[in-house]
Amino acid sequence: DLNALKEAGNAEAKAKEEFRAKLGQLLEGRLFYIPSFKIYGGVAGLYDYGPPGCAVKSNVQQFWRQHFVLEESMLEVECPAVTPEPVLRASGHVEKFTDLMVNDVVTKDCFRADHLLEEVVEELLRDPMLKADRRRELEDLQACIDELNVEQMSAALKDTNTKAPVTGNDLSEPYPFNLMFPTQIGPSGAVKGFLRPETAQGIFVNFRDLLYYNGGKLPFAAAQIGQSFRNEIAPRAGLLRVREFTQAEIEHFVHPEHKEHPRFAEVADTVLSLFSQDAQLGEVKKPFPMTVGEAVSKGIIANETLGYFIARCHLFLVQIGIDTNRLRFRQHLKHEMAHYAADCWDAEIQCSYGWIECVGLADRSAFDLKAHSDKSKVDLVAYERFDKPIEETVVEITPNKKVLGKAFKKDAKPVTDALLALSEADAFALQDACAANGSAPLQTENGEQQIAADMFTVEKVTKTVNGRNYTPSVIEPSFGIGRIMYCMFEHAFYIRPDDEQKTVLRLTPVVAPIKTTIFPLVNDDKLNAIAAEMNKMLTTNGISAKLDATAISVGKRYARTDELGVPFAVTVDHRSVTENTVTVRERDSCGQVRVPIPEVPGLLGRLCKMTVDWETATAGFEKQATAADE
Amino acid sequence: DLNALKEAGNAEAKAKEEFRAKLGQLLEGRLFYIPSFKIYGGVAGLYDYGPPGCAVKSNVQQFWRQHFVLEESMLEVECPAVTPEPVLRASGHVEKFTDLMVNDVVTKDCFRADHLLEEVVEELLRDPMLKADRRRELEDLQACIDELNVEQMSAALKDTNTKAPVTGNDLSEPYPFNLMFPTQIGPSGAVKGFLRPETAQGIFVNFRDLLYYNGGKLPFAAAQIGQSFRNEIAPRAGLLRVREFTQAEIEHFVHPEHKEHPRFAEVADTVLSLFSQDAQLGEVKKPFPMTVGEAVSKGIIANETLGYFIARCHLFLVQIGIDTNRLRFRQHLKHEMAHYAADCWDAEIQCSYGWIECVGLADRSAFDLKAHSDKSKVDLVAYERFDKPIEETVVEITPNKKVLGKAFKKDAKPVTDALLALSEADAFALQDACAANGSAPLQTENGEQQIAADMFTVEKVTKTVNGRNYTPSVIEPSFGIGRIMYCMFEHAFYIRPDDEQKTVLRLTPVVAPIKTTIFPLVNDDKLNAIAAEMNKMLTTNGISAKLDATAISVGKRYARTDELGVPFAVTVDHRSVTENTVTVRERDSCGQVRVPIPEVPGLLGRLCKMTVDWETATAGFEKQATAADE
Repeated sequence: DLNALKEAGNAEAKAKEEFRAKLGQLLEGRLFYIPSFKIYGGVAGLYDYGPPGCAVKSNVQQFWRQHFVLEESMLEVECPAVTPEPVLRASGHVEKFTDLMVNDVVTKDCFRADHLLEEVVEELLRDPMLKADRRRELEDLQACIDELNVEQMSAALKDTNTKAPVTGNDLSEPYPFNLMFPTQIGPSGAVKGFLRPETAQGIFVNFRDLLYYNGGKLPFAAAQIGQSFRNEIAPRAGLLRVREFTQAEIEHFVHPEHKEHPRFAEVADTVLSLFSQDAQLGEVKKPFPMTVGEAVSKGIIANETLGYFIARCHLFLVQIGIDTNRLRFRQHLKHEMAHYAADCWDAEIQCSYGWIECVGLADRSAFDLKAHSDKSKVDLVAYERFDKPIEETVVEITPNKKVLGKAFKKDAKPVTDALLALSEADAFALQDACAANGSAPLQTENGEQQIAADMFTVEKVTKTVNGRNYTPSVIEPSFGIGRIMYCMFEHAFYIRPDDEQKTVLRLTPVVAPIKTTIFPLVNDDKLNAIAAEMNKMLTTNGISAKLDATAISVGKRYARTDELGVPFAVTVDHRSVTENTVTVRERDSCGQVRVPIPEVPGLLGRLCKMTVDWETATAGFEKQATAADE
Repeated sequence: DLNALKEAGNAEAKAKEEFRAKLGQLLEGRLFYIPSFKIYGGVAGLYDYGPPGCAVKSNVQQFWRQHFVLEESMLEVECPAVTPEPVLRASGHVEKFTDLMVNDVVTKDCFRADHLLEEVVEELLRDPMLKADRRRELEDLQACIDELNVEQMSAALKDTNTKAPVTGNDLSEPYPFNLMFPTQIGPSGAVKGFLRPETAQGIFVNFRDLLYYNGGKLPFAAAQIGQSFRNEIAPRAGLLRVREFTQAEIEHFVHPEHKEHPRFAEVADTVLSLFSQDAQLGEVKKPFPMTVGEAVSKGIIANETLGYFIARCHLFLVQIGIDTNRLRFRQHLKHEMAHYAADCWDAEIQCSYGWIECVGLADRSAFDLKAHSDKSKVDLVAYERFDKPIEETVVEITPNKKVLGKAFKKDAKPVTDALLALSEADAFALQDACAANGSAPLQTENGEQQIAADMFTVEKVTKTVNGRNYTPSVIEPSFGIGRIMYCMFEHAFYIRPDDEQKTVLRLTPVVAPIKTTIFPLVNDDKLNAIAAEMNKMLTTNGISAKLDATAISVGKRYARTDELGVPFAVTVDHRSVTENTVTVRERDSCGQVRVPIPEVPGLLGRLCKMTVDWETATAGFEKQATAADE
């Protein structure tokens, strides 16, 4: 029984390996992406996008910009990757953006502690003779490996007797390794900097200017697409864990007490696959389908704005070709979430590596703006005017400048500052002490000073207040473009049932690197001329096309274009010369129709915009038999 | 006379300062770009693009992609910024990508040696009492400050008695400072890396894969748009000298003996302003107008392909709004050019800072591919099949493996390698020596070995050769996007003659951040509804629009849109409700016409594509008087 399970597991693992090998062969062979600096042996975690990969990436980004930035009038910005230390100290990255590392004590090789522990625990759990108590213990450990602090990790490594892989040597104590690439800015070496680990900080530090640009009005969102950098200890799994990658991030600033979204109704009926905290902690541990409207009204998703972005994210991913059945939104468990986060969901996409976090959607409350306000001493706040002015009783401390100046001369300012900084209670206490003893001590920047009763007054006054400053909350959808693309490639990849060799990428027209290829059936001047004319006609109409006049069979040329994920092909044949028609072929159905040349741009335009499906769009045209050599 | 000149110079300098201050106020005030990390005091040489700047930049890049990559079917790639040291050692950047630096010996402040020297020389030359000999000497020095090596710079600094600015302290000896940002890759700190100083190297190292992707055929071009990084000693002049910037580079690979270009005829009549070597060294020192066809046929520009790209670059710059009269192509002087370069021209654009190098266009011969072949030991070559096979006499060295194996055992391989690596002459010499003495010494990887006559044969054989491998030449147009944008902003900026306060950016529709604003004349539900409908209609038609329903006068709203460089404005008024028409206004002429709503997208579409001018496009429509409050 156990053996059967193990065998099934092995078979599945092997099938995944084979699938990945075949897909990898296509993606690297056709230069979708390749290891960077290959001729120098490459560098783990760095990849180049070749021509088709670059085109797909550009399309994904362009569609993201259309779907989010333009559709919602977001403010797009572009900030540098080189970032001075104080910014990343304020954000918490200098202290906390770390992974726990261990070294082989002999070879000094570096490993991620959690990776090693994970493998050992898995291995231990495979033992059918394991005692029930110990099994439960290890399963509990397995569930929280990501969350262990240094001490817990150290204990767990010892408890499981984890050694260095390959050598079997002892391991060092685990210690935190900062994942940011360090650098120096300027010639003196004095200004420490890092490559940004996320694009978000560039937006936060510009909050004041962006708010001003937006006419002082909230809510508004800013967005940035750009490179981020993480010096991973052990990059692996291709594009899924890399050292330099493109992020597309949105920071939506909103009043902390008004997280409704004006366009929520537009998405309320979108059905999502939700893997909530309750679902993860329950008996069944399965995501469930629910409309975003219901999820928000039931309090499963914290608020409308977060729900709105989760739904918009779902729509984005599905439109670029992610399989809805392999997409879920997983809520962070309480202990995973930062203390300041109000709610947090990951869009996870299933691929051969498991469920991969591709988008993070978090309500980060006021944390980021407050952190930068504190460190930069620049208030990052918005102003709200109350519906009607309110009466407010406040304590006013009024230093008597004349008396203070006389008593303290040039040191009067620190005393004044200290007086103004007093809390309500402390101010009255000082007043009482002065009244009782004639004077009292006050702690100032320049040490303790003796304060006399006539140096200040404290009183409660009632004021009319028209509004107030507040720190907005930020709701952050953050997209990893490379991860999304890799999952998209996996979902798009298939092998034609009739031929093991024919691999296809079922890319949607929105993201396909080229929309159509144009083939002259044979190498003939007349056919070539029509093909060139067709090419120009389509390009002018904004439909990217590529002429392939290679002297190989149309079948082979179709196979080539299938591997690139090109959705349509136009073939110019002898009837093109006599009848002014061409054939148009759809990649997945291999269906072909004969179309008058002047109608081709219109037909392909409609198909590429995905406003109509192939069957409907080609209903009026003559069906063609599939070419013999296909 | 001298005083008058000096005064005129001062007045001009002051006018430029004022112009820059006004433009800067607009650009920074409207968030085209702002200093990065401002709330932390900023970092010299790092800038953020705010919403309108980001949109303009995206448009410039998109148009570049259209004009070069798509139009010429180039292979676009995207490579990481983090680059391991060996790549940049091969390219020469580790050794040579430096500026000479000096320190204030007391404060240790860093300065660019050439900047200090330049200022001092200028100051010295301002002295009317300067002796003629000395003047000539200093003028010669001034002409080559950029080219001085360490020793020459040291001598020049002493000769001119250059001191540290402000403090007047002595300066250290000049020393080279590498302009690349250093970093470490991976957790061990063992892999040294840099942020790339240019995007080009990512293309060169992928040459083999790209050639394969292109079916082994030359010529072809690869292109990359991306961030590059230079740790400038003293960043200044806004976007013109920054530490992180976007480059758009093309590497066109071509047979070294066939640098004709198939599309040269299309651009041959383009008139360029050429500042050739001869013109720079001649009496007049002025650029001259000439067609690129004539320049290539006269040998002023080295070849058709380089000429083709110079012309295409000219067309690109003019189409995005660079003033033709302030654009010239300056040829590098012999001593400026790298020893391997066949020819090199800079597109220089005149702005208030002088003539700025914005694009470099170089024929770099086979240098880059050879450098990477050498260091990586991977042949970066193309194969050419001869028109007809040729008979070639070659010297063949045949090691006698049996004898060598017996004599040298496991050391036979280094001996075999050394034999195969012999030059023709050395091989015959060794044969002669062996024949004369029975054996002779041979230098191998493992030191000198004694070689016997029977260990190898050398003979001349005649072979039929069908083709050969060769290293292609590369022609590199390299665009600095930020510099081009800054110059474009300067050329686009003007103040309306009627009002000092009304500043305008005359951005062309191609690059304008938004194509049209839509104003409801007054805040009225009916007008707002039509404006919203208009907004949707234009956006759907691919014309980016922005609704401005702020409750201020239309005149003020026009002024705001003028500053953003928006070329058109649609105003919705009461006649819109009754007649279904709106007014359309053109920014620079302030001309207004009344247009039926359904015709607006078509009209604006034509205007934005710049296929027709305002007067022609609006000939059939009712002219409107300019609004009273304008």
